[in-house]
Amino acid sequence: MTTEIFKAKPKINLKHGVVEMNHGAGGRATHQLVEQLFMPAFDNPWLAQAQDQASFQVEPSRLVMTTDSHVISPLFFPGGDIGSLAVYGTINDIAMAGAKPLYLSASFILEEGFALRELQKIVLSMAKAAREAHVAVITGDTKVVEKGKGDGVFITTTGIGAVPQHVNITHKLSPEDKIILSGFIGDHGIAVMSQRQNLQFNTDLISDSAPLHELTKTMFEAVPHLNCLRDPTRGGLAGTLNEWANHYDVGFFIDENAIPVRDAVRGACELLGLDPLYVANEGKLVTVCSASDAEKVLIAMKAHPLGKQAAVIGEVIADSNCFVQMKTIFGGTRIVDWLTGDQLPRIC
Amino acid sequence: MTTEIFKAKPKINLKHGVVEMNHGAGGRATHQLVEQLFMPAFDNPWLAQAQDQASFQVEPSRLVMTTDSHVISPLFFPGGDIGSLAVYGTINDIAMAGAKPLYLSASFILEEGFALRELQKIVLSMAKAAREAHVAVITGDTKVVEKGKGDGVFITTTGIGAVPQHVNITHKLSPEDKIILSGFIGDHGIAVMSQRQNLQFNTDLISDSAPLHELTKTMFEAVPHLNCLRDPTRGGLAGTLNEWANHYDVGFFIDENAIPVRDAVRGACELLGLDPLYVANEGKLVTVCSASDAEKVLIAMKAHPLGKQAAVIGEVIADSNCFVQMKTIFGGTRIVDWLTGDQLPRIC
Repeated sequence: MTTEIFKAKPKINLKHGVVEMNHGAGGRATHQLVEQLFMPAFDNPWLAQAQDQASFQVEPSRLVMTTDSHVISPLFFPGGDIGSLAVYGTINDIAMAGAKPLYLSASFILEEGFALRELQKIVLSMAKAAREAHVAVITGDTKVVEKGKGDGVFITTTGIGAVPQHVNITHKLSPEDKIILSGFIGDHGIAVMSQRQNLQFNTDLISDSAPLHELTKTMFEAVPHLNCLRDPTRGGLAGTLNEWANHYDVGFFIDENAIPVRDAVRGACELLGLDPLYVANEGKLVTVCSASDAEKVLIAMKAHPLGKQAAVIGEVIADSNCFVQMKTIFGGTRIVDWLTGDQLPRIC
Repeated sequence: MTTEIFKAKPKINLKHGVVEMNHGAGGRATHQLVEQLFMPAFDNPWLAQAQDQASFQVEPSRLVMTTDSHVISPLFFPGGDIGSLAVYGTINDIAMAGAKPLYLSASFILEEGFALRELQKIVLSMAKAAREAHVAVITGDTKVVEKGKGDGVFITTTGIGAVPQHVNITHKLSPEDKIILSGFIGDHGIAVMSQRQNLQFNTDLISDSAPLHELTKTMFEAVPHLNCLRDPTRGGLAGTLNEWANHYDVGFFIDENAIPVRDAVRGACELLGLDPLYVANEGKLVTVCSASDAEKVLIAMKAHPLGKQAAVIGEVIADSNCFVQMKTIFGGTRIVDWLTGDQLPRIC
């Protein structure tokens, strides 16, 4: 037995190799996957600690923690992939607390047989998204399940952020407060649907998947007090408004004419029998603020590239039924209920 | 349309219902699942914020963050289930940094058709485990995948902990440093294997799944400086020692006679062609400390219920090959290599 045999660190075959059960077994194969695929991609001093946890120093502060599993299908779609989506999704949930995203963890559930080439593409996309947003993926985990017990790759990202002193989300809604939406709705959901097998249709639409923390920073610099703030992902704008109406015990009255919807999304929704109000977004936010602050918030949002199409879309009303009502394009009024059923499975 | 129709909050059928795709769609069904199953179980003020993220105040401190996906099969096993395992696994990764666990997030990937009754059992078990360990599950997420694209339930837990001022893990190993193991190895892996379909064998063995943060607290109170600390889960004791040997560029010399292994584990391993050194543990830790501190550490460990069988099992040696060598029961010496292949798939 020579030193070389034992010290040699065989390369994993990123070009033609696939995920094998032993990549999840905690032995040499797991170690190789981590050292040769994950570590070089995420490259940062916390990950280099090479422990089962990462440590970092914090000043006294209000922190937020958020987690999301990503099971989107297909894994790659116009405007993004599960990797960048997993980073932006968690950044956005942090940003919606008015917080600055700091650290992410990433946990992978891989299906046996998944191409390592694809996995690397996803991991590099995650790393790029994190780097560009100035957050670090500081710790992670990899598990492998048998073929037919997963679906390529699921990614769970958890994030930590710090809320600046001046930020205040009041969580109080009153009649006449204004609802402001940051831009076109439905782009993400429709872009993903356009790629589904046995559903592919032609569209130039790309997902709006993007990190919103710089937009929210701008908003809180303009107006430190917002009443509530959310990114309308699964369940769409209608889902967020209904959840708020129930939680804060108010009603909403929105104006369909004021809600930005691209023609391509409107067209695809008609084709598919969907309503853009229920379609997922991954780079949009909706906020409620006092009527007196609305102009300031709107100006701040429009000055940011991700808020150019921001618009006041309605207001809070007193309503013990907690209904979301909408003045339609045709001038009538209808109730926008919760999504029942699942229009768009596995959209994030 | 009457108020009652819209305000009624139908109960989900926890007795006979199953997970449906719309439980993951972000609409009313998702909301019901969260409100009626997850919230009552985890019941705490952070979760009651009912936002996509939870916020909490921290003092200036060194924090640690860790994440793990849990894909164990079967979901219920002697001595635990995927719920308690997911809580303890993450608590233990925090504890291995010498930190006090504070907050957890939990993200669920559910397979369509999974019984809500089983899900509730798992969630209640998680909640009990967290409560008993004085940590709170403060935020979460639920996704649903189609039947055949998952396997019942996968749970990803992420944890935050704070490292007390006096705790110091040096991450430096020198020859003659002692290796101390907290107790019997292999219980978890063998207990789970005993339940696998087409493998069931009779054993009274139960998993050692347990939270180790009180044990580590005791240890750091006795001796604030440990060289390294790890819970040997996947890959077993051999995996941890090989990883350390490579990372710290040293060798280890361990004594098979000193390693506590239950007869039932030894017997099952012989039957299954396994080596207890590679079998996963979920309630054991291994540490390296200076020879002069070893006695103090050992006494502290033995005083804790989870460290009763603690033993010095070997020491660090200088070895440029980074081998883990073992004096066998029969007096010979052999190299304990990394696990290659996957002896025990989906053990955690």
